Amino acid sequence: MQDGTLALRDVPLPEPGPDEALIRVTMAGISYTDLEIAKGYMDFSGVLGHELCGVVMACNDVRYVGRRVAGEINLACTRCALCKRGLGRHCQTRSVLGIVAKDGCFAEYVTLPVRNLHPLPSTLPDEVACFVEPTAAAFEVLEQITPMPNDRALVLGDGKLGILVAQVLMTTGCSVALAGNHARKLELARGLGLTTLGHAELEPKSFDIVVDATGSPKGLEQAIKLTRPRGTVVLKSTYHGAVTLDTAPIVIDEISLIGSRCGPFAIAIAALEAGSIDPRPLIDAIVPLADALSGFERAAAAGGLKVLLDMR
Amino acid sequence: MQDGTLALRDVPLPEPGPDEALIRVTMAGISYTDLEIAKGYMDFSGVLGHELCGVVMACNDVRYVGRRVAGEINLACTRCALCKRGLGRHCQTRSVLGIVAKDGCFAEYVTLPVRNLHPLPSTLPDEVACFVEPTAAAFEVLEQITPMPNDRALVLGDGKLGILVAQVLMTTGCSVALAGNHARKLELARGLGLTTLGHAELEPKSFDIVVDATGSPKGLEQAIKLTRPRGTVVLKSTYHGAVTLDTAPIVIDEISLIGSRCGPFAIAIAALEAGSIDPRPLIDAIVPLADALSGFERAAAAGGLKVLLDMR
Repeated sequence: MQDGTLALRDVPLPEPGPDEALIRVTMAGISYTDLEIAKGYMDFSGVLGHELCGVVMACNDVRYVGRRVAGEINLACTRCALCKRGLGRHCQTRSVLGIVAKDGCFAEYVTLPVRNLHPLPSTLPDEVACFVEPTAAAFEVLEQITPMPNDRALVLGDGKLGILVAQVLMTTGCSVALAGNHARKLELARGLGLTTLGHAELEPKSFDIVVDATGSPKGLEQAIKLTRPRGTVVLKSTYHGAVTLDTAPIVIDEISLIGSRCGPFAIAIAALEAGSIDPRPLIDAIVPLADALSGFERAAAAGGLKVLLDMR
Repeated sequence: MQDGTLALRDVPLPEPGPDEALIRVTMAGISYTDLEIAKGYMDFSGVLGHELCGVVMACNDVRYVGRRVAGEINLACTRCALCKRGLGRHCQTRSVLGIVAKDGCFAEYVTLPVRNLHPLPSTLPDEVACFVEPTAAAFEVLEQITPMPNDRALVLGDGKLGILVAQVLMTTGCSVALAGNHARKLELARGLGLTTLGHAELEPKSFDIVVDATGSPKGLEQAIKLTRPRGTVVLKSTYHGAVTLDTAPIVIDEISLIGSRCGPFAIAIAALEAGSIDPRPLIDAIVPLADALSGFERAAAAGGLKVLLDMR
């Protein structure tokens, strides 16, 4: 991204800082956020991309050299009050890989602090490893709420994140349903063992937990309507700009609305390794880095699933 | 209220149902909700009023006859799934005293189910007893969140509810500040031992807990901005109509936004009796029921505090 335009360019080999590793990217995933940034969100200028699998080429900590890794995307200062509280993902002076003031992984090489790296088990193929970041974001929901066995949870939105969140909620043993607008993705979700519900089957105020992963302000309004009094809405969608919302039901029904963003990598890696989360049906295409622009177009198409860029 | 107009009228003596008590109202408080209803909110038709102190005149349960009582305002069905879960305050077929399909307490007599009654200690004068309902609403915050001793809490809004919520938060031992726009009410709050902060002293993202009791959509937006990442916003304000809101900070900072309404009467009565909550400085005027209309005007005036109607 440069001057608001997405293009394929030659860039210099990035120089790792003293606590950073130089990583050869093997594969990287195009996310919804990347598509938004390509449209101008965040005013980002630099190399895009934050879902990666790669191999450490150089690093002051020799234990990492040659290891396959995934990388956390928030580069925290490690010194502020939030960092000391274990909330480095919220560090106010952080840069964010491919999103805020840090070149991302849609390139042959990328640098990341060693503390951001998570070695990958050899059983996790590159195309699954690219899902560690979004799977961690899905697991963030379980860092914030604890579904009870009798709870009825609903995920609104049949996109990649919605399907991952539904799979994550399934691991808790609560009842989980997914609703969306795309026949193909709902079919795919059913193939993963998820229950899907049509919009006509969604009874107002009937769910204990509703996750909005629609990416649309209408989704939030619908999520609030479908949640029972004293229930929980988890907001996984970021929309830029203001949203028009009737907040009265939040107060009258005493609903908890919880914003949810990045999550725990170690838990995501373990779940992907164990197979309790299976992201492979979400892969639409794997294209070489040279075809990244058409990969973006494919990912942006209506009903687009995951497009991975292959640098091997 | 009739046809959208507030007036003083002769009404028949209400007939208590089989599980109801007939209560002679001794004093009643005009709330913000009453002022909103008088402006057309809820499309209510009937006798207004839901903050009351009274004496039971007739009742099938003889233990209540002659007792001074406060009364919970939600008339639950007791049979639905929410009622069985202990969430009668959220019963979907409930009527609400002076708000939804149930004549309220701005009258010499009112009826309420016996299960809604809370006998009052003799040490609690009528004018303090009228604050049981709003004090319970303030204590609802502590049913929903548990402030830690090191937490910094902020209450936005120096109205009656804001000052009660600040006093309630003070009982937990966390650090509490109040911010508002009315010099007279802020002075009054300081007289109650509360710390007040000017708007220029409010640092963005610095509070662990922010309670919006402003009654204005701008308050919610400000509350979100002042809350630290992973902090909590408690929404005590109901505004009718849609609000325009940037929801991105909720997600990016993973804020929990919790709607909060009616609360526990028994806890409120105990706190008022112990003096840990002192509502008396919030009383602006006590006027006879015959002067109810001018009482409403007084309560609605800018910076209006509590106006009580006296039926004794």
